[in-house]
This record gives sequence, structure tokens and C-alpha cells, in this order.
Amino acid sequence: MNILLTLDRNYILPARVLLASLCINNPGEQFDVYIAADGFTDGDHENLRRLLAHFHARYHTVTIDESWFSGAPTLRYYSRAMYYRLLAGRMLPEHLHRILYLDPDMLVTGKIRPLYETDMGENLYAACIHRGIVDLSTPVNRIRLSTYETEGYFNSGMLLMNLARIRSLVFPQVIFDYVKENRALLVLPDQDVLNGLYGRHILALDEQRFNYDARKYREYLLSSSGEHDRNWVMENTVILHFCGRKKPWHSGYRGRFSMLYRHYMQLTDRYD
Amino acid sequence: MNILLTLDRNYILPARVLLASLCINNPGEQFDVYIAADGFTDGDHENLRRLLAHFHARYHTVTIDESWFSGAPTLRYYSRAMYYRLLAGRMLPEHLHRILYLDPDMLVTGKIRPLYETDMGENLYAACIHRGIVDLSTPVNRIRLSTYETEGYFNSGMLLMNLARIRSLVFPQVIFDYVKENRALLVLPDQDVLNGLYGRHILALDEQRFNYDARKYREYLLSSSGEHDRNWVMENTVILHFCGRKKPWHSGYRGRFSMLYRHYMQLTDRYD
Repeated sequence: MNILLTLDRNYILPARVLLASLCINNPGEQFDVYIAADGFTDGDHENLRRLLAHFHARYHTVTIDESWFSGAPTLRYYSRAMYYRLLAGRMLPEHLHRILYLDPDMLVTGKIRPLYETDMGENLYAACIHRGIVDLSTPVNRIRLSTYETEGYFNSGMLLMNLARIRSLVFPQVIFDYVKENRALLVLPDQDVLNGLYGRHILALDEQRFNYDARKYREYLLSSSGEHDRNWVMENTVILHFCGRKKPWHSGYRGRFSMLYRHYMQLTDRYD
Repeated sequence: MNILLTLDRNYILPARVLLASLCINNPGEQFDVYIAADGFTDGDHENLRRLLAHFHARYHTVTIDESWFSGAPTLRYYSRAMYYRLLAGRMLPEHLHRILYLDPDMLVTGKIRPLYETDMGENLYAACIHRGIVDLSTPVNRIRLSTYETEGYFNSGMLLMNLARIRSLVFPQVIFDYVKENRALLVLPDQDVLNGLYGRHILALDEQRFNYDARKYREYLLSSSGEHDRNWVMENTVILHFCGRKKPWHSGYRGRFSMLYRHYMQLTDRYD
């Protein structure tokens, strides 16, 4: 299975935890991990390569061609790297037909193959709509990016990509033009672009299985009439997503899944 | 490293979780696992053997010789298997000098080698005294088994065994005689015998690192002035022990470490 991460040096620690959790939870699987890295040293690459070698996973660096960004507007506070996941069709080798993009602030706790083998039909992406807290802002999102036609607002942290379709339908210049036209409205640029331009071509997957917002335990529990308790999450959730500013690798973090994350931090350090 | 488990069929599920957690948390280590099993079918043996093979760990069955028990008194509610860990010196191959006995209701969350390589001196065993709740009952324990000389009451769930010394000092008939003489006083027979007969020859190890009573999170936290919080446990504890009647593999269990245990239950099933 092909996995894509895009990250800068500040995210190496969580990326290691994510990759270790992916491999430990998926015994017998062969992973090809593609990293589109920003500002990595040789040591950084070697660090991730060595970790993956423990699990017989292959490490590939994705070469970023400066010329792709000649038409790209720069946004305040955002680096060029925000475009990387949207440019996957361009960046990745032609022989790849499918890849799973993951944000580094995630923890894999289950089997990834059923997700990876999702029948995507003609869709460009498969992703999860974050309901609940996020639903409150949906009317705003709808006005902001005119996504009336879609059912909600997709979180861009987990994206299963249909690369063949993406190569024929997603063009960098269209993305750059969209960003230029909407720059005043963009709040989370990569996610806003994804929804604004491609929302109608995204297959919606179950967020509580494949992109579980770790902040929303109580809401998921209540909306399931108490069924989706901690045991349910441990049995059904494949990807936990530590959304928001508070991150589980920070010392003050007090979320419900902090113990599990901390355990994997320790465990990851032992695979070195 | 040599690991000993003694169990009957009812404990196969937690034993699998324990062994998977041991191996996953100790990458690069080679384990030789000895199982003194009661009433196992061929399928049960194969089940554990297959699990261990995933981690390149070796599975050994320990043959129990009926004749060893000819002088053994039987106690109401207790099977012969309660003697197994006390008879380790007799049961295990002569070439083994050291072994780590573990109760099946444990979860390994850290590196086991520093524990395994403890300098035991002339001691027979290294184990942990369960203080806190258990300290309240220490005066009773002391009267019960006249262990005034020792510092406390050792929990028999984790026993690092100095097999060479045990072979020369621990004799089955002495154990059986002790049980006969004290049968009215024995509450937890194997543990009582261990403390009553051998308490002075046990090296005390840090219970919060090597035999952490999962029921006692609040007490450990309070007695450490708040230092031993969940992060401390994830960074320092090597063995979590789910003592008591409520077990984390039961559906109603609601302990603080239930999520971690449930995660390992799921994970263990994937190594099959």
C-alpha cells in the first residue's frame, strides 16, 4: 500500500509515531511510504528511513520541482508546502494509481486495508466530513466557498487518492487561480481548495472510523446514544486524528486518547 | 530472554495479549517462552505457538510430571496449577539459569531487558511489594504468615527467578508441608507460600515500574505528589498488572488503562 506524508522538520516526531503505529497495527502488510519533505536534512531522511526499515517498509522521497510553483500565489502564514497534497498527481511517480495521504498528527489504531481498497468509482478522493462541532460552521463554509451542492465540509487530513483520475482532472494552475480569486475567504487553504474545487468529486467515508476527531469523543458518544464508547473506538476506529492546536506530543495535553498516544511515542523510540 | 507463564485454557485470551504486548514493546529481542499449561488442547498450543512465531519468539511447553505432586495437599478452590510457579526450578530445563514469570493478567508496556538483567545477588527471586491498599492489610499478613522480618508482602504476579539458587534451596516437599501446616491461614496460597517461606530471599523491586497495580492509579499519583500521572506511567512503567476480580477483557471493565488494554486486544488479533 502506498502512503503519502507531506511535512517539514517540525513534524518529524509525530510523523514517526504515525508511521510506527501504521506498521505495528498492520502486520503482514508491505508499505511504500512517500515523503514530500520541506527543509529536511540528510539525517532527517535517514531517521525516517531507518524507522521504516524495521517494518520492512520502503521509504521514498518525493522531489519537489520549483518550477511547478511559478504560478502559485503565496499566502501569509502559509508555506508552499500547503499545496503539496493537492499536487500529488504531479509529484508522484506515474506508475502509482492510488495513495493514502495522512496528516502527521494522526495515530493509526486499526487495519488500513479495507480503507485502502475502498471502491472509489469515478471520484478523485475519498475523505471524511467532520460533523459535530464543525457542522456549526458549515453554513459559514458554504457561503465562504459556495459548496452548497456538497453534503458538508471534508477534512483534508486523510485523503485516499485516485491518482489516475487526479492526473487527468486536477491541474496546478486551476488551484493557483482559485487561491488567487478566493484569497480573502480562505481560512484553511488546502482544505478550502479541496472542498471548493473538488467537493463534488469526493466520496464521503465514515469519519468515526477513518478520521476520528480526538476532540469529539463526547459528541460521538452522545450522537450514538452511548454506543460509541472507548471500547467501540478501540474496536472500530482505524485512524485517530488529533485536530486542533493542542497536540498529544505537547507536555500539557490532557485529551482522552493521550495515554494511547504517549504509549506509541515511547514505543516508537524503541524502534530505532 | 526466558519467559514463564502458567495457565489454563480460560486464560488464553489474556495470555495472548500479554505475549503480543511483550514482543511488540521489545523489538530486536529474542524470547523463549515456556508455558506450563493445564488442560490445553493441541489447538491451544498451536494458537500460542503461531502468535509467537510472528515475533520470532520460541514456544516451549513445560511437561508437568504427575509424580511431583504425590506429596501435595489439595486445597479447596485451588487447582494443582497454583504450585507451578513455585516448582519452576523442578519443571524447567537444567540449562536455564534465569526466567521471568508473569501472570497472564498483565500488559507489558516497556523495555523488559533492564528488569531481566537485575543483579539478584544471592536472592531466589526479585519481585514487587504492593504497598498502598495492600499496606493496610500488612499487619494481618504479618500475623498470618509470621513474616515480621521482611519489609512487606510480595505480589507473586511478576517473579524474576534465579533458577540455579532455586534448584538448590526450594524443595517441593517443603512447600507441600508448609501448605499442610498453614492451610487454615492461606488466603492466596501461592503468594502466601512465597512470602511465608522465601520472603527473606526476595529482592524488592519498584512496584510502579515492574508490577504496577492498575487499580491504584490515584494512590500512586497522590503518594508521588502528582508526579506519577499518566504520562509518567507511559514513560516509566514496564508491566501493568490488572489485579483483582475486575479484568480489562471483561465487557464491563471501566479502569483507567482499559483503552490501552482494549487496543492491545485488537492488535493481538491481527497477529494471527
